[in-house]
Amino acid sequence: MPVTPEQQAEIDAQRSAPTPTLRTVAPGIEAHLYSAIPVLDHGFVRVIDYMGDDAAICQAARVSYGKGTKSVSNDAGLIRYLMRHWHSTPFEMCEVKLHVKLPVFVARQWIRHRTANVNEYSARYSILDREFYIPAPQDLAAQSVVNNQGRGAPLEGEEAARVLEYLKGDAARCYDHYEEMISQDGQQGLARELARMNLPANVYTQWYWKVDLHNLFHFLRLRADAHAQYEIRVYAEALCNVVKDWVPAAYGAFEDYRMGGANLSARGLDCIKRMLAGEEVTQESSGMSKGEWREFQGMLG
Amino acid sequence: MPVTPEQQAEIDAQRSAPTPTLRTVAPGIEAHLYSAIPVLDHGFVRVIDYMGDDAAICQAARVSYGKGTKSVSNDAGLIRYLMRHWHSTPFEMCEVKLHVKLPVFVARQWIRHRTANVNEYSARYSILDREFYIPAPQDLAAQSVVNNQGRGAPLEGEEAARVLEYLKGDAARCYDHYEEMISQDGQQGLARELARMNLPANVYTQWYWKVDLHNLFHFLRLRADAHAQYEIRVYAEALCNVVKDWVPAAYGAFEDYRMGGANLSARGLDCIKRMLAGEEVTQESSGMSKGEWREFQGMLG
Amino acid sequence: MPVTPEQQAEIDAQRSAPTPTLRTVAPGIEAHLYSAIPVLDHGFVRVIDYMGDDAAICQAARVSYGKGTKSVSNDAGLIRYLMRHWHSTPFEMCEVKLHVKLPVFVARQWIRHRTANVNEYSARYSILDREFYIPAPQDLAAQSVVNNQGRGAPLEGEEAARVLEYLKGDAARCYDHYEEMISQDGQQGLARELARMNLPANVYTQWYWKVDLHNLFHFLRLRADAHAQYEIRVYAEALCNVVKDWVPAAYGAFEDYRMGGANLSARGLDCIKRMLAGEEVTQESSGMSKGEWREFQGMLG
Amino acid sequence: MPVTPEQQAEIDAQRSAPTPTLRTVAPGIEAHLYSAIPVLDHGFVRVIDYMGDDAAICQAARVSYGKGTKSVSNDAGLIRYLMRHWHSTPFEMCEVKLHVKLPVFVARQWIRHRTANVNEYSARYSILDREFYIPAPQDLAAQSVVNNQGRGAPLEGEEAARVLEYLKGDAARCYDHYEEMISQDGQQGLARELARMNLPANVYTQWYWKVDLHNLFHFLRLRADAHAQYEIRVYAEALCNVVKDWVPAAYGAFEDYRMGGANLSARGLDCIKRMLAGEEVTQESSGMSKGEWREFQGMLG
Repeated sequence: MPVTPEQQAEIDAQRSAPTPTLRTVAPGIEAHLYSAIPVLDHGFVRVIDYMGDDAAICQAARVSYGKGTKSVSNDAGLIRYLMRHWHSTPFEMCEVKLHVKLPVFVARQWIRHRTANVNEYSARYSILDREFYIPAPQDLAAQSVVNNQGRGAPLEGEEAARVLEYLKGDAARCYDHYEEMISQDGQQGLARELARMNLPANVYTQWYWKVDLHNLFHFLRLRADAHAQYEIRVYAEALCNVVKDWVPAAYGAFEDYRMGGANLSARGLDCIKRMLAGEEVTQESSGMSKGEWREFQGMLG
Repeated sequence: MPVTPEQQAEIDAQRSAPTPTLRTVAPGIEAHLYSAIPVLDHGFVRVIDYMGDDAAICQAARVSYGKGTKSVSNDAGLIRYLMRHWHSTPFEMCEVKLHVKLPVFVARQWIRHRTANVNEYSARYSILDREFYIPAPQDLAAQSVVNNQGRGAPLEGEEAARVLEYLKGDAARCYDHYEEMISQDGQQGLARELARMNLPANVYTQWYWKVDLHNLFHFLRLRADAHAQYEIRVYAEALCNVVKDWVPAAYGAFEDYRMGGANLSARGLDCIKRMLAGEEVTQESSGMSKGEWREFQGMLG
Repeated sequence: MPVTPEQQAEIDAQRSAPTPTLRTVAPGIEAHLYSAIPVLDHGFVRVIDYMGDDAAICQAARVSYGKGTKSVSNDAGLIRYLMRHWHSTPFEMCEVKLHVKLPVFVARQWIRHRTANVNEYSARYSILDREFYIPAPQDLAAQSVVNNQGRGAPLEGEEAARVLEYLKGDAARCYDHYEEMISQDGQQGLARELARMNLPANVYTQWYWKVDLHNLFHFLRLRADAHAQYEIRVYAEALCNVVKDWVPAAYGAFEDYRMGGANLSARGLDCIKRMLAGEEVTQESSGMSKGEWREFQGMLG
Repeated sequence: MPVTPEQQAEIDAQRSAPTPTLRTVAPGIEAHLYSAIPVLDHGFVRVIDYMGDDAAICQAARVSYGKGTKSVSNDAGLIRYLMRHWHSTPFEMCEVKLHVKLPVFVARQWIRHRTANVNEYSARYSILDREFYIPAPQDLAAQSVVNNQGRGAPLEGEEAARVLEYLKGDAARCYDHYEEMISQDGQQGLARELARMNLPANVYTQWYWKVDLHNLFHFLRLRADAHAQYEIRVYAEALCNVVKDWVPAAYGAFEDYRMGGANLSARGLDCIKRMLAGEEVTQESSGMSKGEWREFQGMLG
């Protein structure tokens, strides 16, 4: 369980005390504030704070005095226009702050998104909890046979059992020794900044992560994608639901132009024109490599 | 006057409608929201939105569940510790969004601070107003005779009068021609994206500028400094007052460790040790250049 | 003429003295080093330094010891793969430093690309030259009647003549007064940091601009695009030629996947599938707005 | 040994083939190119490429046509001036690319410096080597009793032996199981992107890291500092030696103004003035907290 009863009580207390503000309030994300959305076996995402809403995007785009809202349909149209033409700065005018609990190997992918602010739990200063990500049976996937960087079907039977035993056993033993090494009971105790090196990459860490909406969309496009590793994708998917409630018009445009769309190359565009003109185009006549042609055909379903 | 009666009415309306939120509310900056703080002859700064407060800095530093406040003195002490040891990430957890009206030559300095989000009024798309910065008599300064990059005493008499006449006359004529060129009355009208090139750098522009507190402090340290050009310094000073009301503990630490402090070089530190030990240190024995020694003596008053 | 005979002599001297290095050398860009590529009436772009080549992109992608080149075709294939799948970090491993002379209103667009390093000629410290961008007759365009943010056909006859007279006359007069105001001949002289505000936005400035290849491609995609303002597009086009000589494989992939390609929305992709299946799709049945449908049809030629 | 004989042969080959270039060449860093500087038990730092030298810093500061060198003493003086007055952009005009092999827990600290370009060895795609950081006896330090975030004296005797046994044994066992899990010998084999989660944080990874000189100095100031964790400090110290050879004037200024200097708070500056005037200042009369006063006294030796 990612959240203890004490933590839940604290969350409940935070959620019970609204305060008046003159700022823009986005009701859809207020409903999420502080609550822990569970992800993986011990992880979560919590919205800690936010700034702006759909209207704030339009307001910045118009650099106007007013609220930026002419009418909902106008705003939604403007937002679609901005997204379609890569006018990214108005989306940077919204900001969100999250509290995330996640395995270290996921954190290592996540941190590569540089345009964000981060405060991570310090294992130099503090002691990490005994919590490790152990995949559910259906997520214990074999190496992909077609993609060096992907996974295939779930392992089964003895192989699956052995893997689970290794993951659990090694995590437990490494953590036992971590605890023993830092213990100051009858010994000096190894420095925490050194002892942490004995913990495997499925140990959970946590951080505060603050990002603007444009960069969050970039993160979601890459990490909610079908090619992202499952263990980070589930975080991205949980965030998609939050963003949809927060800025529905912007999220709708993002879904249409980024997530659900496709990037056509000049060659791909040329092929489509020829196909629409009735020509039978093959990989050979497309000018594409085999891999690229396979992806092109996948795009066209 | 920077704000029209219509704009003021809109500001008053925005300030009259508090909405409940579950987020952290910082009363000191709520009092500033939307109001236009006048700067220079036609400029202003307005706070449009903000995220976080002093407690949010501590909360991130502790990556804790709670509000991060043990007691006010604890929080202030932690904030001073963070500032003193250059732990910058917790300060990045606060964010502010401003609407600024400013002359173009000030905007050109300001934009050099890259870690911020900007939406500027587009003179490709829209028509700029007839508003130019004309310095007040006491700000019409002569070139400094000691500093290539600074200014001296105000100009006086005929010279001052001639300068004012040039600035006013050229701005007026350039704007008249700008209007004539884009006019579509009996002619095609020059493209706005071209016509704007006729406007001098004291024309006012405006933008939305969003920045985190760490980077805002960096901006303020450089631009509220005595060596900054007066015309940007007055914006920085207006912002200092806002930040002081918003995050009083962080601003206090910033004043002590950044604005009011000094950076000692190894040579300077060595000189101070020798001076405290009773040695008479001169420029020659200091190892410093003349300019550096002058600054060192200036620092010690 | 953008470059004086003295400057040309200096460029020739720099180009005559090769030095041995152990670093990767890219012959295609060595041929450009230091030479001024003329842009607009007084502007230029000069390559001052560079780091890396096509092989360096592959080397970083492979994090290998060797040069990263298996064979040219392999490298080109890998580069296409990286570009197609938005693996941007290997392209960040190449870097280029430029010296650019450009009108201030172009500089103000350019600087919005934040992920770059800039040193601009300081008009606080130094005196600007009497050089202004005056459009050639064919570039003196009317405001677009369909696009608020664009231009139409060139002005003609009396209107064109009047515009040119205004642009030239105002620039000359503003510069005369700039010179008079800063003159210390028989007067104190206005501070340069103030006097510069009298200069219109078509005055030339110059800067050193350093950027990595990924961010340069992003700049080129937006600024070499047909919708970019002509006066910045010509700089982008000059840079495209440099980049093509520098990293031909990466530039080829950029042309195919970014410049020549298209972004399909989910709706657009759906329309194409339906059209390929023989359905007659109209704006009404497309789910697109009129503007979007017009762009969609434009894309399909 | 961090480098195999094959790798050393490749490095020797790269170092034996100078090519003529028209670019600025910095002899001091050419001598380092490609060679592996050993750090910790299996790590290293290798310079892969660089751009610029001391003169390039001055050239950018002057935005001049020429090489920027008036005379060495002039350049060194200008560089000291730039460093003293926080003119950071000219230092951004130099760039360096490194190949670094380092333990994962060091990589996790390092990556927090966001203004840099990184390509890391992918454990989704490839198989990590069996190499783990095991501290030398003198680096097997106890937790500090005064600093929650630091280390004390080396562990001794049985405790040290037990810690070493844990670190070595757990690393070996985790790696054995990692190998077994990904093996496709008689089984499907776990996906590499999952299996890597079983490896502890002292496993070695490697990356290409490219950074400009200003941001490198910032990294070095924090990571070559006495308070940095030993395991990252040794990398920073190795880099200090490289930078000193590369840009000796800039490094000298960095040493004087950043590494060897001190930041005085307003309170600290006030205390020094009072002490120089003969007053006996105590913690009570200083206005500082106990911790701050201790640091202040430490600074004054």
